[in-house]
Amino acid sequence: MAAKVVKGLEVAKPKREELAGKVKALVAKGVTPKLAVILAGSSEASKVYAQSKQKVAEPLGIQFELHIKPDNVSTDELTALIDQLNADPKVHGILVELPLPKGISKEQVMNRLDPKKDVDGVHPFNRGYLLGGQEDLALVPATPKSCLELIKSTGVTIEGANVAVLGRGDTVGRPLTSLLINRGATVTVCHSKTKNIDAIIKNSDIVVAAIGKAGYVKPEWLTAKQVIIDVGINALPDGGITGDVDPKAVDIVAFVTPVPGGVGSLTTTIIMDNLLDAIRLQGL
Amino acid sequence: MAAKVVKGLEVAKPKREELAGKVKALVAKGVTPKLAVILAGSSEASKVYAQSKQKVAEPLGIQFELHIKPDNVSTDELTALIDQLNADPKVHGILVELPLPKGISKEQVMNRLDPKKDVDGVHPFNRGYLLGGQEDLALVPATPKSCLELIKSTGVTIEGANVAVLGRGDTVGRPLTSLLINRGATVTVCHSKTKNIDAIIKNSDIVVAAIGKAGYVKPEWLTAKQVIIDVGINALPDGGITGDVDPKAVDIVAFVTPVPGGVGSLTTTIIMDNLLDAIRLQGL
Repeated sequence: MAAKVVKGLEVAKPKREELAGKVKALVAKGVTPKLAVILAGSSEASKVYAQSKQKVAEPLGIQFELHIKPDNVSTDELTALIDQLNADPKVHGILVELPLPKGISKEQVMNRLDPKKDVDGVHPFNRGYLLGGQEDLALVPATPKSCLELIKSTGVTIEGANVAVLGRGDTVGRPLTSLLINRGATVTVCHSKTKNIDAIIKNSDIVVAAIGKAGYVKPEWLTAKQVIIDVGINALPDGGITGDVDPKAVDIVAFVTPVPGGVGSLTTTIIMDNLLDAIRLQGL
Repeated sequence: MAAKVVKGLEVAKPKREELAGKVKALVAKGVTPKLAVILAGSSEASKVYAQSKQKVAEPLGIQFELHIKPDNVSTDELTALIDQLNADPKVHGILVELPLPKGISKEQVMNRLDPKKDVDGVHPFNRGYLLGGQEDLALVPATPKSCLELIKSTGVTIEGANVAVLGRGDTVGRPLTSLLINRGATVTVCHSKTKNIDAIIKNSDIVVAAIGKAGYVKPEWLTAKQVIIDVGINALPDGGITGDVDPKAVDIVAFVTPVPGGVGSLTTTIIMDNLLDAIRLQGL
């Protein structure tokens, strides 16, 4: 039986309606949510990501401000810009597109963000709160939060579920592990050194693949009742993209997210959700 | 065959010799390491912990300064004391004994610490760095660091090992998971909602129990080659303490830490190790 394909936009749409309502209420209170995005350097992918944020923000009533800096921008210029945005009471959220140009200290840039305006949860303060289990104080990175929303949308119970998280990176694997542990899942974090990954996956109710290898998760590791969240974005020779999970998964499991059109189609909406969380943390 | 009992003091002793040598070198450079401990309220256990730090520190050549505050101390008084210690260039490490008296905001107190003097790794900055995988920038909480040292002392390989971490708390389970993931272990975080915990433990090469229930880990869940680290400290009716692992484990597994005399006997030494890490992070 074919799996239900869990599309990012299907989860994003009701979320956007909810957000538009919240924005309206904030505007009525005199607070017009505003997101500032910093785009440093000439990465085409980053440019597309920044534009997609603008496209999602504006119909929701969220103001969008793009700051473009050249490839030869210095760390000092970027931190000065961040200081200015931190101090601007009309800016509620700041997002720095990655990767930064060569020679820029990512750490210095990210640590300069006001943690309460850090809408992609990259500041050590936000990571510390999230990973320490104090989610109410944290702004949560958008990709793991999107994974969680996609899992929730299937209706499958997270509490008590065995979840395999493939990948131990600081943008997906680690923060998602924390979110899942907080919701009562039994999480096994797998990575390149893991033995018997097939057995671990077979024994899991939910599998999140964020390992960055095309088709890494094999059909024979999968079973009928599973939820598969595919975070992988791997380039294909023809210019397309594919996920970390073999496409045949759709014939085996209960729920699977497509690539493209899965996790990636929800993250921008989640950034806007985080912007409203940021406004709450700012006491507005 | 009986397991090797891994005593905390056996690991602490060579560590202390190493630390004494490092302290001597620092003193020769004009830096005499100094630890300040804040003991707020009348908890007897906290008093004992503070005293044991003094007993370990002084023979190593580390200066020790105890600040005692009454049960009715205010959050403001504590943060003012921390400000003073943060600003004192002769103080390299600050540790606040827990629990704090009722009515005190633990978060406000801990967040006030200079992250670079936070020798038990409780500040969100240190948690963020550790849990995000940037250990070189972090001061690591002493208990999980002790667990790691005890595992290392057995000679069992961590990379590729299946490790069950029982407990998802912010003082042991979560930070230890991060330390183990960084070293290539495949970690399964188990807790009260976990199904088939027996099967997960049976399938693990290393088990760390930090769940706070006397004798929770049953002998029939254990196998011959395992390393068992018992972090539990549970009161017995006769006034003694016992761990989270059934004492019969010693007849089954390869290595087991005793309670008392295991993890707890190493943590104070690890605090001193962290003090030297703090001095390094302070650029001294």
